[in-house]
Amino acid sequence: MPRCFGGVAGPSATMVHFGCGDDLGKGDFVRTIDWVDGRVRLIDQTRLPMEEVWLDLESVESLAEAISSLRVRGAPALGVAGALGVALAARLAREKGEDIGEAVSNAAELLASTRPTAVNLAWGINRVKKIHDPERPESVDELINEARSMVAEDEEINRLIGEVGVDMFEAGSRVMTHCNAGALACVAHGTALSVVEAAYKRGLVAEVTATETRPLLQGSRLTAWELGRMGVAHRVTIDSGAAGLIASGEIDVVVTGADRVAANGDVANKVGTYPLALAAKAKGVPFIVAAPLSTIDFDTPDGSAIPIELRAESEILEMNGIRLAPEGTRAYNPAFDITPAEYVSAIATEAGVVRPDELRSLLP
Amino acid sequence: MPRCFGGVAGPSATMVHFGCGDDLGKGDFVRTIDWVDGRVRLIDQTRLPMEEVWLDLESVESLAEAISSLRVRGAPALGVAGALGVALAARLAREKGEDIGEAVSNAAELLASTRPTAVNLAWGINRVKKIHDPERPESVDELINEARSMVAEDEEINRLIGEVGVDMFEAGSRVMTHCNAGALACVAHGTALSVVEAAYKRGLVAEVTATETRPLLQGSRLTAWELGRMGVAHRVTIDSGAAGLIASGEIDVVVTGADRVAANGDVANKVGTYPLALAAKAKGVPFIVAAPLSTIDFDTPDGSAIPIELRAESEILEMNGIRLAPEGTRAYNPAFDITPAEYVSAIATEAGVVRPDELRSLLP
Repeated sequence: MPRCFGGVAGPSATMVHFGCGDDLGKGDFVRTIDWVDGRVRLIDQTRLPMEEVWLDLESVESLAEAISSLRVRGAPALGVAGALGVALAARLAREKGEDIGEAVSNAAELLASTRPTAVNLAWGINRVKKIHDPERPESVDELINEARSMVAEDEEINRLIGEVGVDMFEAGSRVMTHCNAGALACVAHGTALSVVEAAYKRGLVAEVTATETRPLLQGSRLTAWELGRMGVAHRVTIDSGAAGLIASGEIDVVVTGADRVAANGDVANKVGTYPLALAAKAKGVPFIVAAPLSTIDFDTPDGSAIPIELRAESEILEMNGIRLAPEGTRAYNPAFDITPAEYVSAIATEAGVVRPDELRSLLP
Repeated sequence: MPRCFGGVAGPSATMVHFGCGDDLGKGDFVRTIDWVDGRVRLIDQTRLPMEEVWLDLESVESLAEAISSLRVRGAPALGVAGALGVALAARLAREKGEDIGEAVSNAAELLASTRPTAVNLAWGINRVKKIHDPERPESVDELINEARSMVAEDEEINRLIGEVGVDMFEAGSRVMTHCNAGALACVAHGTALSVVEAAYKRGLVAEVTATETRPLLQGSRLTAWELGRMGVAHRVTIDSGAAGLIASGEIDVVVTGADRVAANGDVANKVGTYPLALAAKAKGVPFIVAAPLSTIDFDTPDGSAIPIELRAESEILEMNGIRLAPEGTRAYNPAFDITPAEYVSAIATEAGVVRPDELRSLLP
């Protein structure tokens, strides 16, 4: 946790804290999202890498806004955010003497609507929502405790993904990753970056190339920030440069996260993942997906059943308030794409590494 | 030509003209680069789409700067720019009574060094440079006339590319293009956009999707501007969104330009072309390269022999002076990638449409 805070009141019942990021030594542990004093604390990722701003969210609405605006993002973090949001609704309703069941239900609906493609968000929401039992007042504490336990659980899951995934790395690996599947996408460690972290600690990583990940630049802003803190040699490239770089023989392994994995092994992940997988396959470079079991959706038969979230056109047409395209030009801004299972070499989960066609072996 | 100018003196012996772009009706003809009153006039593409600024360049150094800074870009336009630059050097040396051979030689060297991958630039330079003969003073006029004739020739070549390429389009085509291979990349019409223009005039185009083309956003800024002027329904998407869009079945044909085509049909073009070709092949969508014969380099056996220009890291790490990545993060910024011939369905040239393995049939 950041060691010092200054606070100012923000909008939407949000207390904004300015953390002293520079006081944190390299490798210091930071939980990206946590339950602190009955509120949801998270680092505002839209302000990175220039500022470390921590938000203490005191309402479900402000958490929903934070999810919509990608202040918190990444499949595992969204699962925890959804759970903590429902816990927050339950706590607030109990304190105000309002109908807890209705509050839980409304919160679940509002939160789930913010990012419809992210299966972890719905998974986290449903996991705690179902604990509430109007017949047993103590179920509210159980619900909150369940949400809190998910924070520690996520941290351990992601540590394990790194431990099992590292076996696929050889000495001197030149790694490529896309978007941010790091600690910032989770409670800690990350998924793809947990594998990189574990490999780096064993001296197996020569360099990491992070794609910048337009339009919101999670690679340039977040992954580069995490890699710098880890002390890993790294560089960023434009998304469109990744395929040529793989073709040139300068990449030994590609590792990404996943927003949802269908039962057949098709992977929905940040838009731009699919062209990396195409290029990796064409060059014979391993393409590894690192994802917790909660990302695997056995109810979704294949990628064609996964809805693709379309985001605001302004994310592409403007930057920092400056218009990039002519007035009148429209934009198509999908958040995800689908990588068919045939392009995925392996999926690393906390239960082990499997080929996409072996996913069912992970079921208990 | 723009119908009105206002002028202010710029740096490097450059006269800066502000064109009244709004006075130009849709479809009005504009030569992107031309020889006017003994100087090189070009539209400053770094100022589009917000401003139409025309530059009258009075020195080879200012033209070299314009090429390096991408104020003028695109393979065919660079060929003309190289030729006009050598003509400018010859004219200036004659007026000043300096050694014309030395001036021509120095200009050729300076101009060729600005964009080493672009074969057209060297082609344009060499075509006029070799005309100079110290024994025949009139060869200076011949050199200048040759450069000027290339302006009209380029215009006609690109019109023809559109005429022959359009036969590959069917009614209702949903087209994707990358970067800017339009009138702005040439003297007029463009290469890929000449095909789109011809198809649009025949009512065959339903919509064009232009990739934004990071880092300099030639798609968002230039292609969208040209499509808007043409009146074509269009949208932009992030570069990384193109592959998923092709996979989803929403694109019927991909058409791009080329910076250099090797003898075996491998294509060097703006970075990000290769992943589009990968996605097109995976989906069975035609991938068409539109390029003048001058782009075909029979002295280059295949794509591995084409040098890839690396551009400034700041183009990726900063935008409008704002740092996007953490301090200390490096960037890899290639200008081109190589699309192997096996991914190219057809190459449209002014001499006809061929498969990549039929290039030699185009030789006279």
